[in-house]
Amino acid sequence: MDFDYTPLFRKDLTGQATPWAGFPKYNFVGGHNDPDSIPAADLAEAAKQVLLREGQNLATYGMRYGPQGYLPLRDFIAGKIQQVAGLTSHADQVLVTSGSLQAIDLVNAILVEPGDTVIVEAATYAGVPARLRRCGAKWIGIDVDDDGLCTDELERTLESLRQRGIRPKYIYTIPTIQNPTGTVMSVARRRALLRIAGAYNVPIFEDDCYADLLWDGERPPAIRALDDSGRVIYCGSFSKSLAPALRVGYVIADWTVLSRMLTVKFDGGTGAIEQMVLAEYLTAHFDDHVSRLRGRLKEKCAVMVEALEKHFGVTADYRMPRGGIFIWVALPEAVDTNRLVKVAASEGIAVNPGADWSADPNTGRHSIRLCFGNAPIETIREGVARLADICHREFGLPARSANVDRG
Amino acid sequence: MDFDYTPLFRKDLTGQATPWAGFPKYNFVGGHNDPDSIPAADLAEAAKQVLLREGQNLATYGMRYGPQGYLPLRDFIAGKIQQVAGLTSHADQVLVTSGSLQAIDLVNAILVEPGDTVIVEAATYAGVPARLRRCGAKWIGIDVDDDGLCTDELERTLESLRQRGIRPKYIYTIPTIQNPTGTVMSVARRRALLRIAGAYNVPIFEDDCYADLLWDGERPPAIRALDDSGRVIYCGSFSKSLAPALRVGYVIADWTVLSRMLTVKFDGGTGAIEQMVLAEYLTAHFDDHVSRLRGRLKEKCAVMVEALEKHFGVTADYRMPRGGIFIWVALPEAVDTNRLVKVAASEGIAVNPGADWSADPNTGRHSIRLCFGNAPIETIREGVARLADICHREFGLPARSANVDRG
Repeated sequence: MDFDYTPLFRKDLTGQATPWAGFPKYNFVGGHNDPDSIPAADLAEAAKQVLLREGQNLATYGMRYGPQGYLPLRDFIAGKIQQVAGLTSHADQVLVTSGSLQAIDLVNAILVEPGDTVIVEAATYAGVPARLRRCGAKWIGIDVDDDGLCTDELERTLESLRQRGIRPKYIYTIPTIQNPTGTVMSVARRRALLRIAGAYNVPIFEDDCYADLLWDGERPPAIRALDDSGRVIYCGSFSKSLAPALRVGYVIADWTVLSRMLTVKFDGGTGAIEQMVLAEYLTAHFDDHVSRLRGRLKEKCAVMVEALEKHFGVTADYRMPRGGIFIWVALPEAVDTNRLVKVAASEGIAVNPGADWSADPNTGRHSIRLCFGNAPIETIREGVARLADICHREFGLPARSANVDRG
Repeated sequence: MDFDYTPLFRKDLTGQATPWAGFPKYNFVGGHNDPDSIPAADLAEAAKQVLLREGQNLATYGMRYGPQGYLPLRDFIAGKIQQVAGLTSHADQVLVTSGSLQAIDLVNAILVEPGDTVIVEAATYAGVPARLRRCGAKWIGIDVDDDGLCTDELERTLESLRQRGIRPKYIYTIPTIQNPTGTVMSVARRRALLRIAGAYNVPIFEDDCYADLLWDGERPPAIRALDDSGRVIYCGSFSKSLAPALRVGYVIADWTVLSRMLTVKFDGGTGAIEQMVLAEYLTAHFDDHVSRLRGRLKEKCAVMVEALEKHFGVTADYRMPRGGIFIWVALPEAVDTNRLVKVAASEGIAVNPGADWSADPNTGRHSIRLCFGNAPIETIREGVARLADICHREFGLPARSANVDRG
């Protein structure tokens, strides 16, 4: 045990993992979902049926369907996305990926080189800046309001970049249940985004992985559904609508894009059993399952909002999410959420620091992302109360809790 | 459909995929396996049982076992590798990966930077040079003989590199059923390799993904089993011993290595259902299954060897593999296998060109890799006969077939 790897490790490695110690009791981070909503019995039956019927196909890489993935799953995806998001596509335009994380990796692998610029939302999925940093790329954040990405700001930014001779590689947006703000981009904004992206000749990378969890109102058409130029690369996932431990997502794009992605997807294919089980299960149960899950998540969200009101009151500023599994909470300037998150973690409460979920970590340092998908209802109540206690102890805020002065 | 991605694509992209047209009839490429040997009914039953019992765990990334993978599978791997390869490890030293391809990616992601040098075997798995090229690294091939990697040549190469101030990042070897030569490294060579790697202070990356398919004789101890310095990173896979469409492999290494790999394995974990089904199935059936599979593959190998003898005779020079799914065949200098492979492909016969399976494509350009795992027995016979016809038509060799002068 004396071999010293230190001088051999890549110089850009950041830190090292700590041994797994289990989930914290108050688990308000990540994309975890509601355990009681996992349809274990139906998945078990689907798995049995599809393996009995098609297990022999496991003998070849990609089964007999090639590197784009299991055809019945691609057929399901194409049909379902047309139904729910108005996006007409064919199985040939669908690439099954190992989670939507791999979709992000593939977009970067075909488009992004060191020094490149990418446009993201000012508050955005943490994995995207992290990946762009590894690619040696820069990113610029555009604000999000109640109607989604602020297209006026986008236009000014693109114009300013053009004047400096910079053409961004893509505009990354999560239009429907934006991560972390929970907002939904209006149809007018979607059209404005397409117009501006057209004027500046920039592709759009549309990440729709939470969209199935919109709990009220009509799901807007996908941005890709409103476009006929081929500039929109669309991705989705079953991590949020079924189970995150399944690693199955998808890209819908024109062949010019997919044919390049396939040259850098050198992983031997995405796991076949997961694809088979998903296709078998979802074809029969998707609508019922997602409808039940949305109801359950909406209920949990209400519990977390009630707890926030009770224990943080006016100290917590947030938008009511329109779906999904998280609430983006802004705290007063006095609260350094990097420190809050650290202290909370030491007391069994896991919370995402706003800095990680922000294009500019500095603008996010008073915010936190709270996920309500995973924890039981009573644990949500307790956890938010404890988090308020810690916040008060560390920063003197919130000054009142449950309408009682903390003194 | 008019958006032009061309100026936006990364400049290092090579080519583009062609739409999937199904497998060729005579499929002698890749790591495909024997369809009749897939235990579909047992897999179906295992899937049903494990999902009924533990399906709820799918609600969280990594289930409840953390980013190293499903604990029952890591326990199985640690126990099995100890039993078959004398390598004592604990589940804490096992990282489940999305195929052994991801194990290779992770080794490169923590160790390899542009300009680095890696040692490989002169005839080697095609995916490794391809990946090193993408990393901007150089590689040097060391010959393989009947006893495996030629350690004298390795020592001379390392000495010459040292004199130029170059410390390679790792030595990549497939010691047991080497890909593509089918050889097995002797225990003496394993010890010599460890001694030399120690003297030059270089890690060893041991890829044991075919070792379960050794059909006769005792499986030698893993190189990592003979080492106590921690310099050996070991990887394996269930693609060859069970099914390649399953994307589950593993790394066994010290925590200093795994703790870094975990920082660059940002994929949300390896597919949970595949891990669960594998653990459930393998714990009950691994030994019986692998024993049956080996028998079947040995039989197919004999068919291919018989066909090579019959149709190529002395024109084909090869070692009898000691296991696995492929034969590495050297043809006379007159035969340019890049051309042979292209013509064969146009006639429905898929064969790996030796250039791809060689550290130096030039030295491999008269060889081919023929996989016998996938095709039915009659198809193997026909395919080899047709390949000999094409070879004769294109290059005038073999001059005789089935002991008849081709004239």
